[in-house]
Amino acid sequence: MRIADLETPVPVVDIDLLQSNIQRLQSFLDERQIANRPHIKTHKIPEIAQMQIEAGAVGITCQKVSEAEVMAEAGFKDIFIPYNILGEAKLNRLMKLAKRIKVSVTCDSEFVAKGLSDAAQKNNLTLEVLVECDTGAQRCGVQTPEQAAALAKTISQLPNLDFGGLMTYPNMSAPYSAGVADFVNQTRELLKKENIAIKRVSGGGTPTMWQADSAIGITEHRAGIYVYGDRLTMRSGAVTLDTCALRVWSTVVSRPTETRGILDAGSKSLSSDLHGLDGYGYICEYPEAKIYALSEEHGLVDFSACKTKPQIGERVSIIPNHCCTVTCLFDEVVGMRNNQVEVIWKVAARGTVR
Amino acid sequence: MRIADLETPVPVVDIDLLQSNIQRLQSFLDERQIANRPHIKTHKIPEIAQMQIEAGAVGITCQKVSEAEVMAEAGFKDIFIPYNILGEAKLNRLMKLAKRIKVSVTCDSEFVAKGLSDAAQKNNLTLEVLVECDTGAQRCGVQTPEQAAALAKTISQLPNLDFGGLMTYPNMSAPYSAGVADFVNQTRELLKKENIAIKRVSGGGTPTMWQADSAIGITEHRAGIYVYGDRLTMRSGAVTLDTCALRVWSTVVSRPTETRGILDAGSKSLSSDLHGLDGYGYICEYPEAKIYALSEEHGLVDFSACKTKPQIGERVSIIPNHCCTVTCLFDEVVGMRNNQVEVIWKVAARGTVR
Repeated sequence: MRIADLETPVPVVDIDLLQSNIQRLQSFLDERQIANRPHIKTHKIPEIAQMQIEAGAVGITCQKVSEAEVMAEAGFKDIFIPYNILGEAKLNRLMKLAKRIKVSVTCDSEFVAKGLSDAAQKNNLTLEVLVECDTGAQRCGVQTPEQAAALAKTISQLPNLDFGGLMTYPNMSAPYSAGVADFVNQTRELLKKENIAIKRVSGGGTPTMWQADSAIGITEHRAGIYVYGDRLTMRSGAVTLDTCALRVWSTVVSRPTETRGILDAGSKSLSSDLHGLDGYGYICEYPEAKIYALSEEHGLVDFSACKTKPQIGERVSIIPNHCCTVTCLFDEVVGMRNNQVEVIWKVAARGTVR
Repeated sequence: MRIADLETPVPVVDIDLLQSNIQRLQSFLDERQIANRPHIKTHKIPEIAQMQIEAGAVGITCQKVSEAEVMAEAGFKDIFIPYNILGEAKLNRLMKLAKRIKVSVTCDSEFVAKGLSDAAQKNNLTLEVLVECDTGAQRCGVQTPEQAAALAKTISQLPNLDFGGLMTYPNMSAPYSAGVADFVNQTRELLKKENIAIKRVSGGGTPTMWQADSAIGITEHRAGIYVYGDRLTMRSGAVTLDTCALRVWSTVVSRPTETRGILDAGSKSLSSDLHGLDGYGYICEYPEAKIYALSEEHGLVDFSACKTKPQIGERVSIIPNHCCTVTCLFDEVVGMRNNQVEVIWKVAARGTVR
C-alpha cells in the first residue's frame, strides 16, 4: 500500500533514516568506548529495540516496570530501569522480572534503597542499583556528591543490593560535560576512601548524545529520541531535519478562512508537548505554516506566511514537537520505504505507565 | 480491592459523582426541552455512554469515524459525528456505519458536502448533514450566516443528502448566547426565503452547558467533560471541585530537595494540556502545591507553599487539567465507591483518531 493511501492521522517512519540514525549513534559511542543502552520509551516497539541491539547496544533502558515487562516478554535480556521503584506491588513485579532477566535500577533515597533490599532479600536475589544524581536537570536525584557517596555506601551495605554506579539525566540546556564530570569525579574521590568502585556511569538524552565522552567518566549512554528525531532535538542541534525519521501524516479537512487551515490531527495525535517551541509541529510541505493551537481532533494552522496554501483534502506530513508523547497515542506505527508501507509495527509497550 | 492498593498512576472515577453529574445536566436540558447528545470523546467508555443514554440522552456524539465504529459495535444506534469526513477510505467506513445505525455528520465546505453526497449515492442511502458554523471559536465552520445559508442550500440540492440543521462549537470565552443566537437567527431568516427548515441546532461544550437555552435556538447540546470535570471546566465556572469525578492517583517517588517532590505521573499520564492554566493538575491533598513541569514519567512538583510536605511513598490524587486527553492515555479507568474498586472499565475507544 502507498503511504498516500493510508488513512490519516498516521505516524510513518522512514526505515532507511531509522536505520542510519541507529547506526550513527552506535558508531559514535563505539569509537568512544561508551556502551549504548538506548531508551525504548520513544518507540515502545520491540522490533526497533531489536534493531538497536543488533547494531551493538548492550541492553535497553525502560522507564517503568510495565514497559520493561513488555520488553522482557519480547525477549530482551538486559534492561535498565532508571527509576525509583517502590510499593509492594511494583517491587513484586520488579522481582519477578529480575528472576527472569538481568535488571538494574536506580534510587535517590535511602527509603527506596531499603525497599529494594527488602524485596531482593525476600526473593533471594541480588539487584544492581545505581544512584541517581541531579547534575543540573533538577528532576530526581541526590543533590551533591556527598549525598551520592553516602547513598552509594548505604546501597553497598544493604543486603542483596549491588552498587552499580551513578546515573544522571543531564541538564539539556547546559554542556553535558560540565555538571556531570565534576559530580562524578567528586563522588568517585569520596568513594575511593570507602573502597567502593563506581562500575557504571550512565548518562542520557538525545540532545546531549554527541557530547557523551568517556573522558568525562561516562561509561554508557541512554538516548531515546535519536531513532526518530523531532523538533525538540532539532532545536538542541543534535538532530537535523533531513534525518528525522518519523512524521505524522494528516489531512486538511477545512479551510474556513483564506489563511486558516484545519488538520485532522489534534492533541490526541500530536500531543500538546510544547517545551517552549513555537507551535505544535513542523509541516514539511509548508515550512512557514504554524500549528498555533490544538483541539483533541483538530490542528489549527495559520498558513498566512505561505505563498501557496493547501486545498481541502490535501495531505501534509508533520514532524512533531516530541515524538515520545506521539507514538504512545497510537496502537501502530507504519514503517515505510519508497513511499510504500513495508511493515506495520505494533506499539507493544503503549500505555505502560505503571 | 481498596483504591489505596491500586498501583499508580491510575485514573479513578467516583461513580456516585459520575452519576450525579450525568443526571444534573440531563435534568437541566430536559427542563429547557433541549436534547442531550453527550460527547463520548471524554470517557470513550461504552458503559458510561450507556448511563448517559439511560438518563435520557437522545444519542451520542463522537469526533471521528473510528470512535463511532467502536460505539456502534457496543450497541449505540444514533451517533452524531460533527466533523468534516473526506477521502475514499473514511467515506466508505462512514457509509458502512450509516447502513447499520442512524448517523449524522457535519460539513463546512462544498468539497466535503459533495464527497458525502457521492458516497451516499453510491451506497443508496440518505445521510443527514448539518452545516458547521464558526460562531466565534475560530476553529472549523463557515464564517457568516450567508455562507451557512448557501451551504445549507447546496446540501439540500445535492443527491442523497438531508440538510439537518446547524452545528457550532461555541466560543468558550464569550457568552454562549450572543454569537450563536445571532448567527442562527440570521441563517434561519435567509433559509426561510428558500423554504429550507433548520431542524437541529446543535451546540456544544461543558464550559457553556449551563447557558444552553432553547430561547436562543439551540435544540440539542453536546457536552463531554461534564461527566468527569477537570481544571479547565472548573476555571470556566461550569464545574466545581466537589463534583469532579475523575482523579489520577499518583505516588511521590522522590523528594530531592526540601521543596521539590517528584510524582510517578508525567505527560504520558496527565498529558501536557495547559490551555493557560498554571501547572499540570490540581493535587487534592496539597492544594497549594504546583505541578510545574512534566517529563514523560515524572511530575515535578513545587511544595514550597505547603505547610506540610509529602513523604516518599505517599499517594496523592490529581484532578487533571483536561480529562479528555488523560483517559485516552490509559487502557482502563477504575470506577470507585467508598474507596473500593467497584468496576474496571475498558477505554474501548482509546486511540480512535481516524
